Amino acid sequence: DQPFTLFGGMNVLENRDLALRVAEQYKTVCAELDIPYVFKASFDKANRSSMHSFRGPGLEEGLRILADVKAEFGVPVITDVHEPHQVAPAAEVADVIQLPAFLSRQTDLVVAMARTGAVINIKKAQFLAPEEMRHILHKCEEAGNDQLILCERGSAFGYNNLVVDMLGFGIMKQFDYPVIFDVTHALQRPGGRSDSADGRRQQVTELARAGLSQKIAGLFLESHPDPDNARCDGPCALPLDQLKPFLRQMKALDDLIKGFEDLHIS
Amino acid sequence: DQPFTLFGGMNVLENRDLALRVAEQYKTVCAELDIPYVFKASFDKANRSSMHSFRGPGLEEGLRILADVKAEFGVPVITDVHEPHQVAPAAEVADVIQLPAFLSRQTDLVVAMARTGAVINIKKAQFLAPEEMRHILHKCEEAGNDQLILCERGSAFGYNNLVVDMLGFGIMKQFDYPVIFDVTHALQRPGGRSDSADGRRQQVTELARAGLSQKIAGLFLESHPDPDNARCDGPCALPLDQLKPFLRQMKALDDLIKGFEDLHIS
Amino acid sequence: DQPFTLFGGMNVLENRDLALRVAEQYKTVCAELDIPYVFKASFDKANRSSMHSFRGPGLEEGLRILADVKAEFGVPVITDVHEPHQVAPAAEVADVIQLPAFLSRQTDLVVAMARTGAVINIKKAQFLAPEEMRHILHKCEEAGNDQLILCERGSAFGYNNLVVDMLGFGIMKQFDYPVIFDVTHALQRPGGRSDSADGRRQQVTELARAGLSQKIAGLFLESHPDPDNARCDGPCALPLDQLKPFLRQMKALDDLIKGFEDLHIS
Amino acid sequence: DQPFTLFGGMNVLENRDLALRVAEQYKTVCAELDIPYVFKASFDKANRSSMHSFRGPGLEEGLRILADVKAEFGVPVITDVHEPHQVAPAAEVADVIQLPAFLSRQTDLVVAMARTGAVINIKKAQFLAPEEMRHILHKCEEAGNDQLILCERGSAFGYNNLVVDMLGFGIMKQFDYPVIFDVTHALQRPGGRSDSADGRRQQVTELARAGLSQKIAGLFLESHPDPDNARCDGPCALPLDQLKPFLRQMKALDDLIKGFEDLHIS
Repeated sequence: DQPFTLFGGMNVLENRDLALRVAEQYKTVCAELDIPYVFKASFDKANRSSMHSFRGPGLEEGLRILADVKAEFGVPVITDVHEPHQVAPAAEVADVIQLPAFLSRQTDLVVAMARTGAVINIKKAQFLAPEEMRHILHKCEEAGNDQLILCERGSAFGYNNLVVDMLGFGIMKQFDYPVIFDVTHALQRPGGRSDSADGRRQQVTELARAGLSQKIAGLFLESHPDPDNARCDGPCALPLDQLKPFLRQMKALDDLIKGFEDLHIS
Repeated sequence: DQPFTLFGGMNVLENRDLALRVAEQYKTVCAELDIPYVFKASFDKANRSSMHSFRGPGLEEGLRILADVKAEFGVPVITDVHEPHQVAPAAEVADVIQLPAFLSRQTDLVVAMARTGAVINIKKAQFLAPEEMRHILHKCEEAGNDQLILCERGSAFGYNNLVVDMLGFGIMKQFDYPVIFDVTHALQRPGGRSDSADGRRQQVTELARAGLSQKIAGLFLESHPDPDNARCDGPCALPLDQLKPFLRQMKALDDLIKGFEDLHIS
Repeated sequence: DQPFTLFGGMNVLENRDLALRVAEQYKTVCAELDIPYVFKASFDKANRSSMHSFRGPGLEEGLRILADVKAEFGVPVITDVHEPHQVAPAAEVADVIQLPAFLSRQTDLVVAMARTGAVINIKKAQFLAPEEMRHILHKCEEAGNDQLILCERGSAFGYNNLVVDMLGFGIMKQFDYPVIFDVTHALQRPGGRSDSADGRRQQVTELARAGLSQKIAGLFLESHPDPDNARCDGPCALPLDQLKPFLRQMKALDDLIKGFEDLHIS
Repeated sequence: DQPFTLFGGMNVLENRDLALRVAEQYKTVCAELDIPYVFKASFDKANRSSMHSFRGPGLEEGLRILADVKAEFGVPVITDVHEPHQVAPAAEVADVIQLPAFLSRQTDLVVAMARTGAVINIKKAQFLAPEEMRHILHKCEEAGNDQLILCERGSAFGYNNLVVDMLGFGIMKQFDYPVIFDVTHALQRPGGRSDSADGRRQQVTELARAGLSQKIAGLFLESHPDPDNARCDGPCALPLDQLKPFLRQMKALDDLIKGFEDLHIS
């Protein structure tokens, strides 16, 4: 059981300067705390509630910024794709490409992603049971890719709410792939604002602790220097100036949990 | 309040002969019962649980079959699309194009569909509240299309189960667009079989009655001459030989309901 | 398949005059519409959210009022009990005694009720699956009572919301006992007000139609001459002056549905 | 932030010898690990699924056994009550009396319990939102008791399943009363066996870790020397011989978490 990897960054690429600033902060803190680090940002928010919401710089400019972050800081990057044609260019830059939760059953996208040979982060859809994730794993395997990650991000719980079923981590770990936790999106309140999701960032440490208590392979986290003015999902974002104390706690927790012997209870 | 329209047909286009046979049966029964009719079939099942499952004839051959059905029986047709590039060719043949539930938040697909000018059937995602459908309607309207239909097909209820919230019809009707009910997919048990969804077709009349009791604009229904050997979603399909008695009841129910005065209870 | 029975009345017995007034209205309307009728009211609301909320006249005075209603109008009555010691006196007056949803698993109460020989209306708890109701039926049967009714009133759907699973009616009907629908309590929004449940009475006709479309044995309905000033559950109550047009529609719907042949779909 | 208290013991009092044996084991382990300890057992399982299931020794004999445990081991005890008349005798023996989840809205029981002056452990019902617990707290306070504990034990998640919303702990802690976690009952699968609930005891360490990661006041845990032959809720019980390694991990986790500074994220 190795230390957790942080897939950390920002929701959408607002601009190049901010991306570099955020990446630098993550890299510095992760280096100090000895946390393996992957920079995360989206080039396109393809499923915003409103058409007027900011979507991002798009594929070309977005990949350029991601390449700059890689070059500048020497960190691997992860980004999400939404259509098969984006997969190849994204995989040229990104070390990990991410399958969005809503799209996790779209066979053509899954197969196109798998064929790149990149590592694939599979977000668990809000409408899927943990056991059902095996179908998506199989699709990737059959397309020749076994560099797969499963990512929990909450389940639909009535209307306008998500709940994280902590027992789902254990079920997904039985598939023998790394399981990570997207604490940021699990904090969403879908439809909670007039034209976008609301969030519960004031509870991010609580929910992240619960996730890391599950002996998982990684944490997915979005931050922003000014969450109230973030262009997407600010209500879920960790204020960037809290990154270090936040991660210090998470690292200590993960270290402790990973040191526990397995109790085999049948 | 006009009589309901039937969006009826089969799940996936298994082959041309079967499509014609099914369409003929629907057309005959609907003519006898005076039910406005639109033929439904999919050219591609893009989100099957398993990669080995049958997906259909594909866009080109599928649209050819749909065109044949139109020509042969003089009925409008509806089919679903999954990527922006499919939208224009589909809208050339289909009178109504359908936005799949899982994809209902993908802005590019929604806008591409809206721009065709075709009527759009918007499936309500299993993870969305009825109130949230206004966002998708707005996207279409802003893209210049107000020929819109909202389609209920059940909400995620714990794992591996769907429930239809009957109060959602009333909420969605307040948007002043036609609201229809996809009884077939609401019968699914997601992840209920080892490699596909299970279904509850033995309860199709019960659930269809509940839906039509809501004074709605249409019913969406898939049938098959041999549900146990259907190539997709057989567990939810009405046996084709039950179509006439089934629809006779639904028509009588709809007629009664549409004749009721509105009781204004505040 | 006989016409539905109406278990209709008011939430809590506010006072004797109001009870008589309400009962008279129900009796008159049901007689005109040929609907079998049972008067319903509670002598104690034992599980109000707040201690300051009105609970009712209590067992003794409450049963006196119920006896007066019976004598005055010659109608059977139903009331709910909450502790074993209330069961015998309640059953002396009431023709049907009701097991509250929250208490439906309390064995001593169930057995005490069963032993009276009265008809028992078993409310399905918000946390039970339809299939689980057989356990409660078995408890009653083993205590020597098979005069049993099952009553749907909604399932917990996330926080602060209820949903009625229409497929549950069919599942419960397989137990071969009458299944009825408490439309009033299914309209609740638990915890929706600062010190009590909220409700959706403006949708009562819609939800009642859905229930009666299921070919059920009865409807449970609470009304009030002035819902905004009712002392309990006013947000769910039908305004009493709407009773006749409301029931006229329900009767017509039930008549139609009961006339349908069963379609045996396997 | 003090170390967590263990409310540990067995589900139902099967017999005196077993109770003493279980209590001794808990006491020894808790002393070694420096965990404050309260012995838990039920004298009556008042809401079993089946009438044929074992209910326990009853009030009188049960309280005698609890008194023996107190005398023999010098530990406080907690037990649950189901009717107002049980409250006074139970509070004479038990240091903490417990309000069952299904009964948590029954005002008379709540008030009777509050008036004893005993500490009250309030189980959160499976159908209540965390915010709604304030109503029950208020009832107790108004009855003159502020020695209150709130206990999470899972929320209804569709049919036959429970999920623990980790964010609920933080919400309930805002009421300024101790919040504890009943990991055992949160492992239930309601209606999962032909005549009783099923459980997921093989995941008890995972779920307990998640709970203790929330900086809570206590853990509620049931064990059994032979879970497969326990007379109630064996599928959820920790095997008694795993108690020490289990608690050692929980203590280490709690110590770490309680040492974290609060990050104030607004």
